[in-house]
Amino acid sequence: MADSLDAVRKCLRDFPKEARELYLNETVPYLDQPPSPLEFYREWIGPNKPCIIRNAFSHWPALHKWSPPYFRQVVGSKMISVAVTPNGYADAVLGDRFIMPEERHMTFSSLLDIMEQKEEGQGKLPDAVNFWLGEASAVTSMHKDHYENLYCVISGEKQFILIPPSDRPFIPYELFQPATYHQREDGTFEMVDEVYAEKVPWIPVDPLRPDVERYPQYQLAQPLHCTVRAGEMLYLPSLWFHHVRQSHGCIAVNFWYDMEFDIKYSYFQLLESLSGTVGGL
Amino acid sequence: MADSLDAVRKCLRDFPKEARELYLNETVPYLDQPPSPLEFYREWIGPNKPCIIRNAFSHWPALHKWSPPYFRQVVGSKMISVAVTPNGYADAVLGDRFIMPEERHMTFSSLLDIMEQKEEGQGKLPDAVNFWLGEASAVTSMHKDHYENLYCVISGEKQFILIPPSDRPFIPYELFQPATYHQREDGTFEMVDEVYAEKVPWIPVDPLRPDVERYPQYQLAQPLHCTVRAGEMLYLPSLWFHHVRQSHGCIAVNFWYDMEFDIKYSYFQLLESLSGTVGGL
Repeated sequence: MADSLDAVRKCLRDFPKEARELYLNETVPYLDQPPSPLEFYREWIGPNKPCIIRNAFSHWPALHKWSPPYFRQVVGSKMISVAVTPNGYADAVLGDRFIMPEERHMTFSSLLDIMEQKEEGQGKLPDAVNFWLGEASAVTSMHKDHYENLYCVISGEKQFILIPPSDRPFIPYELFQPATYHQREDGTFEMVDEVYAEKVPWIPVDPLRPDVERYPQYQLAQPLHCTVRAGEMLYLPSLWFHHVRQSHGCIAVNFWYDMEFDIKYSYFQLLESLSGTVGGL
Repeated sequence: MADSLDAVRKCLRDFPKEARELYLNETVPYLDQPPSPLEFYREWIGPNKPCIIRNAFSHWPALHKWSPPYFRQVVGSKMISVAVTPNGYADAVLGDRFIMPEERHMTFSSLLDIMEQKEEGQGKLPDAVNFWLGEASAVTSMHKDHYENLYCVISGEKQFILIPPSDRPFIPYELFQPATYHQREDGTFEMVDEVYAEKVPWIPVDPLRPDVERYPQYQLAQPLHCTVRAGEMLYLPSLWFHHVRQSHGCIAVNFWYDMEFDIKYSYFQLLESLSGTVGGL
């Protein structure tokens, strides 16, 4: 019985390497022009491979119009919802907590005031708006989405760390108590447990400083690093793990498309359940 | 340890059901017109789902020209290679042998003579020619190919039994000694072992008469049955198991396209190695 289980572990350990040798690139390739819809589907979406596309939205007025003074003039009085944290980590693991930002409502101008004074605070609008404005300290912790993601950088740059879904056996997940930041009157932050919320499964590894003693299997993962600059569009395929940093005041727009819940999704679910079943590799 | 292995078995047992509920159809759907290349990729090849397409090759002269008298007139003197067996099963399991046909060279006219006299013998030209002419008794035993397959029936009809790749955990494989038929002078057949050839892994189940006592897990597979008639084209996705029968003298042309060796292929390989690892489900 132990032998069979070892054989299963070996399958799960060998699979990411074989997938990498078979079809993955060692870096994220650049396309100088947007591909045709058929090419894009056949070469990138179907095979679930990331790429960075240049000259895909050179016609957008946003590329030369959007800036803090422009937003202040055009939408400065608009009330928006801002995710506020003391350290830039929103929806992330801190100790034994899954910590969520304080959601604060303010005008767009107030957010720009905060960012220009470089005070604490990050702008992260809700996913549905697909508009991103963030401080240098704002970090998106490693996670995956059920979306095909087209990520267009308008100004500044974003740094992505990408890990393919086939590396799932090497990615640890743990359950965390949800908590939310609240800023006190003196400006300091406290964490308040969401006592009635269910525990959240999240990835406890920080790819910038991985704790390899605690998560040795993570050393077998092979992250790709790429920088997406103003005017470039990243195709971030569904179910790829990603961690995102940015330059101060970086402006970006992203498009989420529902992934196909097809054979690839089914296979990933199998990999996920097997990875959770056999314990350490 | 036994519990973990049971959990792995449960994953493999549940996966085909979940895949079926998520994205598979219960029958093979018909399209009344050929889809655009993008639609075809997005709706069928990408998701790895079969369909039958009507009116895809209505402009082929073959549809009204091709018949035994026409072939006799136009290519009757051409030497061809014919696969000859006593029972119609070529490349199939018989007892503890993997039995291959006798390859015989004759003119096309001689093949037509044999078929018209309904004597023993089947016409199965090599894969590369993509031309199929067979007797009612000629059966292709259950197997899978690494190709995207477009199968056009010119006259007569073909009956397919299809099983999705996600049912792989329920499909038994065994190793068989290769052997070849040789017809003796008195017309009877003998099997001659290919003593230097390696054993061949093949599926020992006949989907028309499955031996469920010996292969109980096969009862969990859910085969799809479909009939492809003259003028219709089956898209048979890569890695789908298939078993094929035909009407007497059925003429067909098929196109094999190399499959993408991408994430789907990698996942299938994982499923294959896991299915071989944990033994009976």
